[in-house]
Amino acid sequence: MMNLQTLVGTELPIIQAPMAGVQGSALTVAVSNAGGLGSLPGAMLTPDALRQELTAIRAQTTRPYNVNFFCHTQPAPDPAREAAWRAALAPYYAEFGIDPASIATAPARLPFSAAVADVLAEFEPPVVSFHFGLPSPDLLARVKAWGARVLSSATTVDEALWLQAHGVDAVIAQGLEAGGHRGMFLSDDLTTQVGTFALLPQLVRALHVPVIAAGGIADARGVAAALVLGAAGVQVGTAYLLCPEATTSAVHRAVLQSDAARHTALTNLFTGRPARGIVNRILRELGSISPLAPRFPLATSAVAPLRAKAEGLASGDFSPLWAGQNVAGCREVPAAVLTQELVRGVG
Amino acid sequence: MMNLQTLVGTELPIIQAPMAGVQGSALTVAVSNAGGLGSLPGAMLTPDALRQELTAIRAQTTRPYNVNFFCHTQPAPDPAREAAWRAALAPYYAEFGIDPASIATAPARLPFSAAVADVLAEFEPPVVSFHFGLPSPDLLARVKAWGARVLSSATTVDEALWLQAHGVDAVIAQGLEAGGHRGMFLSDDLTTQVGTFALLPQLVRALHVPVIAAGGIADARGVAAALVLGAAGVQVGTAYLLCPEATTSAVHRAVLQSDAARHTALTNLFTGRPARGIVNRILRELGSISPLAPRFPLATSAVAPLRAKAEGLASGDFSPLWAGQNVAGCREVPAAVLTQELVRGVG
Repeated sequence: MMNLQTLVGTELPIIQAPMAGVQGSALTVAVSNAGGLGSLPGAMLTPDALRQELTAIRAQTTRPYNVNFFCHTQPAPDPAREAAWRAALAPYYAEFGIDPASIATAPARLPFSAAVADVLAEFEPPVVSFHFGLPSPDLLARVKAWGARVLSSATTVDEALWLQAHGVDAVIAQGLEAGGHRGMFLSDDLTTQVGTFALLPQLVRALHVPVIAAGGIADARGVAAALVLGAAGVQVGTAYLLCPEATTSAVHRAVLQSDAARHTALTNLFTGRPARGIVNRILRELGSISPLAPRFPLATSAVAPLRAKAEGLASGDFSPLWAGQNVAGCREVPAAVLTQELVRGVG
Repeated sequence: MMNLQTLVGTELPIIQAPMAGVQGSALTVAVSNAGGLGSLPGAMLTPDALRQELTAIRAQTTRPYNVNFFCHTQPAPDPAREAAWRAALAPYYAEFGIDPASIATAPARLPFSAAVADVLAEFEPPVVSFHFGLPSPDLLARVKAWGARVLSSATTVDEALWLQAHGVDAVIAQGLEAGGHRGMFLSDDLTTQVGTFALLPQLVRALHVPVIAAGGIADARGVAAALVLGAAGVQVGTAYLLCPEATTSAVHRAVLQSDAARHTALTNLFTGRPARGIVNRILRELGSISPLAPRFPLATSAVAPLRAKAEGLASGDFSPLWAGQNVAGCREVPAAVLTQELVRGVG
């Protein structure tokens, strides 16, 4: 099987996981210049902001980098569900003195689109990764036309086979340990989600394209173990959250360095899709998965003002504290140092 | 860290996981004679049956072996909850022509006790492992008195530290991928349960006693990867389910060899405690976790006649089809062959 370095032209078998909301191009550049594949999360960027970030990356590195996008279908607003969800949140609005009528629609996570592809075409990024499947065949063809390597996440054997059949160059095996949004796209049944130790070898066995391991990998031993299991490379996210180049908030950084970070859960409260974050007050009180939460990404709006108020009081009680199940690799060191340490003694 | 071979005197770093209901001493003997640590599940054996099995083991091997017991507190019967649970099952009783009034109390899983310790003392097994914590200090002292090595399962860092403080010789890191009952005993919150890739290195870092990896390990690559992550040895269960020495039922064997085996879930429907098994009709229709299921092990009785009727029709619709998230290692080969293959190229 082709290794990651050969596939994308990096020196090291490391992808820094794209993490929307906690990083921009500074982390991308730092990791790419250190020999890994730095990633820019594009899901929350307008086309103009994306252009700015890509310009910044190109100005600061000549190494390969990755740009990541979500591929969801934007749901129709559901006023009844939104109202039920806001009713469930009403006690919190009262606690913080928020007028529910004043709540604006939060900036949406937008799916990959022709407008985004137009911006990408100006830069021709060497690697483009997707989450929640793939964009439409015509949009995917545009990305492949400039020679980009295309990656996407699979959480089951079925999803991995689907991605391979639809033309990806490598599949990211996203084990259940991983922080942030589950990339699941063929099922919404959480019992289909499996740990890295089970998922990775099953994908390696089932696919002919390279498989990249993600989920629970925090240090050089984890990287080495994933390679032993047949991975072509690894994708590491959580470990980078404390790096100075990340834009992780102060409350998020504080919780990551506390014992509370040991307890994460999949939650749909913040966006409508299950994503792994540290258990905080809103998860404890409403349950980490609520049937009332609006469909992705519409759930974002209702919690946003609570998050803002709480963070203003230095509290992460209402924040999405994305993290994987293994925060042991989180350290306040430059991303270049972390990247190098991930491969110390490996290979 | 001391390796498993040094700790328990085996040739190989492999423990065959004790699996109540699908194996007896034949599997134990086969694995021990092959150089691994064979295990006998004691949770469902009467003292007399236990004596018979231990006699059989001692007659057939001079190698080290392990005997496993559960350490739960037997709950008081709760007639209201039992009635609610049987009401939920009523449509199935009707479908199979079962008179609910005729349902006997199923043979219970009993916790480790003085009567069991009396039988063990006749044999002085070299290794004794526990699930759901540890027995009372006086009972534990009896086991340690003849020099037995004591193991128990941890599903969190907190549980591992508790076990170490209470005198275990090694901790089994039971990752979320593992089949059968979760060993969790300090919390019943399923969100505390983490994958092997995250759990194993955290326990290795937190403990001074050896850590044995369990969950998702199906072949030599998996064993090698666990050792790279710092494990002193590995415990493998699911891969042994198709061996001729296992007593796995015909319906269970058939499902394990089908694509259905890829989809497991934690379920409390069969015993009252969460355990991982292949998703079948009862899980699909009632949900894999039901708040109505009586407390462990009392839930066993109500489903037992449905299981018997369905299995009589060659159906596993109501059977506990225990399996881990990685069934890729299941093969119809003698347990000795499987044991040797697990370490091929390792070390």
